[in-house]
Amino acid sequence: MAFEDRYSEQIAEGMVRINNDATEGLPHYLGITFDALLPGRLEATMQVPQSVITPFGTMHGGAMAGYVDHVMGCVLYPLMAKGQWAATTEFKLNYLSAVKGGELKSIATVLSLTKRTAVVRVDVSDGDRLACVAQGTLLITDRGLGTRG
Amino acid sequence: MAFEDRYSEQIAEGMVRINNDATEGLPHYLGITFDALLPGRLEATMQVPQSVITPFGTMHGGAMAGYVDHVMGCVLYPLMAKGQWAATTEFKLNYLSAVKGGELKSIATVLSLTKRTAVVRVDVSDGDRLACVAQGTLLITDRGLGTRG
Amino acid sequence: MAFEDRYSEQIAEGMVRINNDATEGLPHYLGITFDALLPGRLEATMQVPQSVITPFGTMHGGAMAGYVDHVMGCVLYPLMAKGQWAATTEFKLNYLSAVKGGELKSIATVLSLTKRTAVVRVDVSDGDRLACVAQGTLLITDRGLGTRG
Amino acid sequence: MAFEDRYSEQIAEGMVRINNDATEGLPHYLGITFDALLPGRLEATMQVPQSVITPFGTMHGGAMAGYVDHVMGCVLYPLMAKGQWAATTEFKLNYLSAVKGGELKSIATVLSLTKRTAVVRVDVSDGDRLACVAQGTLLITDRGLGTRG
Repeated sequence: MAFEDRYSEQIAEGMVRINNDATEGLPHYLGITFDALLPGRLEATMQVPQSVITPFGTMHGGAMAGYVDHVMGCVLYPLMAKGQWAATTEFKLNYLSAVKGGELKSIATVLSLTKRTAVVRVDVSDGDRLACVAQGTLLITDRGLGTRG
Repeated sequence: MAFEDRYSEQIAEGMVRINNDATEGLPHYLGITFDALLPGRLEATMQVPQSVITPFGTMHGGAMAGYVDHVMGCVLYPLMAKGQWAATTEFKLNYLSAVKGGELKSIATVLSLTKRTAVVRVDVSDGDRLACVAQGTLLITDRGLGTRG
Repeated sequence: MAFEDRYSEQIAEGMVRINNDATEGLPHYLGITFDALLPGRLEATMQVPQSVITPFGTMHGGAMAGYVDHVMGCVLYPLMAKGQWAATTEFKLNYLSAVKGGELKSIATVLSLTKRTAVVRVDVSDGDRLACVAQGTLLITDRGLGTRG
Repeated sequence: MAFEDRYSEQIAEGMVRINNDATEGLPHYLGITFDALLPGRLEATMQVPQSVITPFGTMHGGAMAGYVDHVMGCVLYPLMAKGQWAATTEFKLNYLSAVKGGELKSIATVLSLTKRTAVVRVDVSDGDRLACVAQGTLLITDRGLGTRG
């Protein structure tokens, strides 16, 4: 899909700044940085913190799940109308390989966008192989705290 | 299913102790306590930490996802043979209501268990209503770090 | 959840009759009968037709997927307001055991219902064991073909 | 991933022939034809039969679910060792747009393949837009009816 005509660069820049400048909150704890928030596409990096490495020496799956949820929820904001709000209502993920640390690159892609819902896909890579794939739904509502306010 | 005959109370007690006594790691960060690790059933509580409340005043979905992943992965250990290891390979969750804080009770239930795989369901409650439901798969392997060592 | 106060027995009876009297369509092909359409709960039976047994001697997974989709989509109708329409937007299922034929009983349960969405769980049993578990989302809309018309 | 070195063109051709020549069974009922079974990729077409169009004028979601399950389960065969067998253990799908009939093209792609499991993604297109996306897991076993026998 082409999202250029409804994309707000200003909102995108605000989202990136808010995420990257955070000094607290789950995304900060997980080490998530937004690299580029483009029309229908969010590229991010997770610098795996030592705190989410389990005694088995691999990253806790819950950290990956938190990463996926976060990027899935943020890719939509620059595409929404003034005052709208998006909430992830469900997602599914498959873990493809164990992660030992380092950097995890992710790409969240908007596959579908209607007035009320969006479907987003997330691919997370660990070096040259996929570590996790996910897809989920966001519900868009006019009520709630506006983000272009 | 009945799991009493393959349930190790010793392993269960060890898992509960390890989880509840942790002073670091993702489950500790998320405020997860194991209340009872029974045959095929894990009851847990998440004391939602302020750090996972977003600026919108609701809990970050990624915290719920991490909670679900954690309990799903732990319910199986008392049921496995010596030296076996379980890894969550996939799960899906639906968020049913926004969470503002407080205590989230969860029940993870083993629905199916074969030599190689298990399917687990998780229900998370916020007071008297469901906040999240999930189901996922664990892969059991003989290789890896044994837990009944 | 309690759904008695918004349940229309008339709609429920109509749904059961339409399903059970069908002489064509996918549900008929799959051998699906509705046994009871209660408030928030649909009990159904699939009499596995020989035509969906693969050369391996087991039921095609796609037949189970079709069964799950059908009951998930129908449980909601007696609970909706006049003129509303429900569409399954996503679901996930886990196959727990191979099916060789016979009768598959299912229970679809509404876990959550708001003005715009519902989450439904489906358990399919093959005799005394679970054959499939699923959960999915329905989107409720006021536009479209009304069902209480 | 590159699958050329473990791909059996002979098995692929056999699978295509078996599917396309079938005169009974669920895939035949759903109108599914395999166009190309390449290394790690299956391209197929569903010629939507009138029998799966509901009274609302749109395709029954269960037909899409059956389509997805079928292509997901077949893409792996040319990549497996002699005597191995693959079973879909779970999948999740999102319906992106209502289908009124015609041809549905699908691409099933193997995202990950280990000795015991594979993860497959399926995209179904209705003309120039996505109608359904799915991802699921297959479990590979040495027991069972071999397919390279």
